[in-house]
Amino acid sequence: MKSLHSSSTCSEHWRVTRSSHGSLNPWKMTILNDCLGMYDWSLGAKYFLNKGMFGATVANTGSQRHLTFVQDVEQMMTFGCFALTELSHGSNTRAMRTTARYDPSTQEFVISSPDFEAAKFWVGNLGKTATHSVVFAQLYTPDGQCHGLHSFIVQVRDPKTLLAMPGVMVGDMGKKLGQNGLDNGFAIFHNVRIPRENLLNKTGDVTPDGRYVSPFKDPNKRFGASLGALSGGRVGITRMALVNLKLAVTVAVRFSATRRQFGPKEDEEIPVLEYQLQQWRLLPFLAAVYALEHFTRSFCMNFVEFQIGLLMKDKSDRQAELGREIHAMSCASKPLGSWTAQRGIQECREACGGHGYLAMNRLGELRDDNDPNCTYEGDNNVLLQQTSNYLLSWMQHKQQGKGRIESPLETVNFLEDMNSILQRKFTVGSVEECMNPGVPLAAYKWLVCFLLGESQRKLFHEKSSGLGDFEARNNSQVYYCRSLAIAYIEHTVLQRFHDLIQDEQTPAALRSVLGRLCALYGLWTLTNHMAILYQGGYFSGRQPVDFIHTAILTLCGQLKDDAVALVDVIAPPDFILNSPIGKADGELYKNLWSTVMQGKNVLERPSWWAEFCSDKPAVGSLRAKL
Amino acid sequence: MKSLHSSSTCSEHWRVTRSSHGSLNPWKMTILNDCLGMYDWSLGAKYFLNKGMFGATVANTGSQRHLTFVQDVEQMMTFGCFALTELSHGSNTRAMRTTARYDPSTQEFVISSPDFEAAKFWVGNLGKTATHSVVFAQLYTPDGQCHGLHSFIVQVRDPKTLLAMPGVMVGDMGKKLGQNGLDNGFAIFHNVRIPRENLLNKTGDVTPDGRYVSPFKDPNKRFGASLGALSGGRVGITRMALVNLKLAVTVAVRFSATRRQFGPKEDEEIPVLEYQLQQWRLLPFLAAVYALEHFTRSFCMNFVEFQIGLLMKDKSDRQAELGREIHAMSCASKPLGSWTAQRGIQECREACGGHGYLAMNRLGELRDDNDPNCTYEGDNNVLLQQTSNYLLSWMQHKQQGKGRIESPLETVNFLEDMNSILQRKFTVGSVEECMNPGVPLAAYKWLVCFLLGESQRKLFHEKSSGLGDFEARNNSQVYYCRSLAIAYIEHTVLQRFHDLIQDEQTPAALRSVLGRLCALYGLWTLTNHMAILYQGGYFSGRQPVDFIHTAILTLCGQLKDDAVALVDVIAPPDFILNSPIGKADGELYKNLWSTVMQGKNVLERPSWWAEFCSDKPAVGSLRAKL
Repeated sequence: MKSLHSSSTCSEHWRVTRSSHGSLNPWKMTILNDCLGMYDWSLGAKYFLNKGMFGATVANTGSQRHLTFVQDVEQMMTFGCFALTELSHGSNTRAMRTTARYDPSTQEFVISSPDFEAAKFWVGNLGKTATHSVVFAQLYTPDGQCHGLHSFIVQVRDPKTLLAMPGVMVGDMGKKLGQNGLDNGFAIFHNVRIPRENLLNKTGDVTPDGRYVSPFKDPNKRFGASLGALSGGRVGITRMALVNLKLAVTVAVRFSATRRQFGPKEDEEIPVLEYQLQQWRLLPFLAAVYALEHFTRSFCMNFVEFQIGLLMKDKSDRQAELGREIHAMSCASKPLGSWTAQRGIQECREACGGHGYLAMNRLGELRDDNDPNCTYEGDNNVLLQQTSNYLLSWMQHKQQGKGRIESPLETVNFLEDMNSILQRKFTVGSVEECMNPGVPLAAYKWLVCFLLGESQRKLFHEKSSGLGDFEARNNSQVYYCRSLAIAYIEHTVLQRFHDLIQDEQTPAALRSVLGRLCALYGLWTLTNHMAILYQGGYFSGRQPVDFIHTAILTLCGQLKDDAVALVDVIAPPDFILNSPIGKADGELYKNLWSTVMQGKNVLERPSWWAEFCSDKPAVGSLRAKL
Repeated sequence: MKSLHSSSTCSEHWRVTRSSHGSLNPWKMTILNDCLGMYDWSLGAKYFLNKGMFGATVANTGSQRHLTFVQDVEQMMTFGCFALTELSHGSNTRAMRTTARYDPSTQEFVISSPDFEAAKFWVGNLGKTATHSVVFAQLYTPDGQCHGLHSFIVQVRDPKTLLAMPGVMVGDMGKKLGQNGLDNGFAIFHNVRIPRENLLNKTGDVTPDGRYVSPFKDPNKRFGASLGALSGGRVGITRMALVNLKLAVTVAVRFSATRRQFGPKEDEEIPVLEYQLQQWRLLPFLAAVYALEHFTRSFCMNFVEFQIGLLMKDKSDRQAELGREIHAMSCASKPLGSWTAQRGIQECREACGGHGYLAMNRLGELRDDNDPNCTYEGDNNVLLQQTSNYLLSWMQHKQQGKGRIESPLETVNFLEDMNSILQRKFTVGSVEECMNPGVPLAAYKWLVCFLLGESQRKLFHEKSSGLGDFEARNNSQVYYCRSLAIAYIEHTVLQRFHDLIQDEQTPAALRSVLGRLCALYGLWTLTNHMAILYQGGYFSGRQPVDFIHTAILTLCGQLKDDAVALVDVIAPPDFILNSPIGKADGELYKNLWSTVMQGKNVLERPSWWAEFCSDKPAVGSLRAKL
């Protein structure tokens, strides 16, 4: 792990944010995370796991009695982590098997891992550095009853020596594909005793004599509330993925503007960005950066609004609805963001040819550090089901005559006009017309309505053929619910970008280039769904595909001369970007060459040179002698 | 780099293969490469760059006077590499700027790099170990004339000391995304003098007094012949990518058969392979493995036939045509193979969730080691243009009335019926019918014909709008020529797999499962082209997409119980696979846990523990004092 910001700066930022629900700018926290991550995601992760996942979870799900743990973390006296997943369980959080049995004789909980398969696993900061952990375990009262998953503060190491506490076997998981500055670890608990007060008791508590008390009647609701602390993660990951894509696109566009290869004449080579193929590979991802920048920014604000409601104990219907909508959006925005980044980084790496394969140019690190965004805080494919469930429930609401479809963030309001939308067709008459962002936006509205109808039909068909709810849902994911969830979030991202361009506050001088980016993003993502647009009759004949393809290439051509300026806007300073081929001065080869020459022992012969030459074993002498 | 095979075994294999054009089995060389790569691609690369790229190039493009260099490599007295690309030039090989000027006074060539941008770069084995290199340079005779790119043997290090030779600055490029057991290097030549005889003189030579002589009249043809030694690379890479995909699919399928998560009842979890979504994510890649296994095997044999023709100095039209066809096939099969593997490995990594992100499970290494397959020996996107050019020239041949379309390997013969194929429609009446591999095969024939017509139309349109040949071709790549080349090779792979199933020599008991794999592969790749099938009128209405989607899911369901057996067939022993979650015994957690516990210092506190605890700097003390 590299260190850029001094710890005092970090905790200052954190304090600003923690007290920021009112007048201060909560956007700062997101920007701090962007900055740490642009430099090194392991640094960002260690910081946020300690302050956010440990500190904030204790603050939000504990009570007054836990204040000292929060203060110790703020003072850097202790170092925290968050232990939920186990070796044999990730997505299915309810199935965790670590137990916390209450012993009234000493007023302690006894934390135990029944076997190694229940070892806490993948816990960031736990490998080498954490002293305290929030541990999720099944709570048992002395009467033998299990009250479900609860969270406890468990000290795992001595803050003075970093040695493990008695009964705790804790260690490092070893090398990962990326983020190796973060010490992911495991822990097995062997009858570890912790004070009764270490139970984070917002959703349930145990009295000194061992009775369970909770403000929640329904254990399912309690479970949901205790996991509520996790919901911000997906909003944050969507943003983190975007940051990775920004860096990769910056490197690839700058490289492509300076790398020359072939040309119309034999003695004159042209920058590879002049090739339509290279534009088509890279510029849609640049458009995606701008689309997702606006989306993640506005979505973070939506989430802050929701959190303020939580803090204010807002019990209104709107607050509840807002929570459901944000859950549905984040369960699709994380997949969209992380996959777009993963594919985009790979494309950028390939578009830089061999030089993109050199580690110093950072595209590999970006890809490897972005990779876990696709699977943690919920596997992308599993999460999408949450989004489609939300949309299906709106459909049911409407069909049962329960009133208008209207959500706080308006992402589903257009479904109210579903029947008339499904009557519409693609009626664009020219390529020029097709370059209007309204064209893909209208197509997406039809697409979401169509896929929603199809998903419901499929689900009904599966159920009526005798399958239970579990199987029927599973068999409706591929091609239906999954596509529905993706189309829904792509529509939302596009709608917000489209609205930004219409917004009077957007400077007039920027609207033209933003409009092109918006149209390019919309048309490009729409190409993944064209077969469905034909299947459902929105498209017919040759023209739709011809127009869309030509519009995409025309937009790429229009944007290519702005491409370097557009990445300069999103790029961090060269020191942070840390990629010789991506430096702002465009001195591609000088930067690359001087970095190669500064490598360690670059011109030295290897230490084992003699074994390779003069001292090498005779041919055959290494054969087994048995 | 790890070492598995003793050197004597390797050279034995090599000798078998070198003398194998007649009676011995040339397939052995491919299998040796498979085996080395399954264990460690860096090992395989070091071996083949020395023996194949150096040794074989010298043997094939030199003459009797170079025999000693080949013998020294065989005896392991020297170690070779192959230096073509330069810092500022990769794809455009003609633009290389290293020079070789002949000095008749000493009968030597003087090798020089004009500046650092012309440094030889990316040369495998050159970083630390090579003693001799085949170096490509522009040959100048004393009259000042440049005779184009030629290859020379240049000694770069002393075999006794591994120290660089005078005038040679040679070093290691540093860390790459993968294959770090291979020492990729650079070299700058500063008036390095080599004997006249070190010119590899098959295609051109310089007399002692400095006159250039060549059996080729046309410098373009000479250039093509001197690069002919490279053409086998793409055939080999297609196979190497397949090997990577085999390993990844093995890991992911075995993991999915043993990992349980959720289930129809709360206390009963089911293997994740039971989920339709997981089947759909993985089984098409398993089908791709079988399709590409048969294709690469038969294609290697085609290439051997071509090489025998070269050795026999076959000057027939058929031999020339075979060369063109293999060139076109390999320029598309390398992209298809490397991209399929890259996407497949990423999907396998994600399908294994967090455990797929642990380095020990090898999915990251496979992805990183496969990655260069996408860009070296020709960037995938650039190569595809070669394939479409080949197809367009056949089209022209036909339109100019030059006779039937008939190629030695029959990959284009169906184009003879282009007009009648384009009249056909998708007429499948049921899902069952759709599961016949003949269905996607017929669709592909139509697709290739349609895209060929469209590509030609587009190219004509661009030219008639006033663009030169260079621009017109560039502007016809995206959506046209590129898709055409991909569809052509997918059709070829599918056709060969289909033929295998029809073949009477294929055991009857295997035909059913192979038929399912073939249908699944064909339908799955076809889904990428469905919009075009609608656009051109081959598809119409709702049914085609419905049938194909349902057929894919049905085939996945039928194959899932065979999936473990199907990977057991292709998997290497556990020791070679080297992935705890992919072991054949299915003891997922035991294998994973015991590997974690055997990690280095897994339970130790870090060496810097005191700085993190007791000796840590006071808050604020690290602020800059300036």
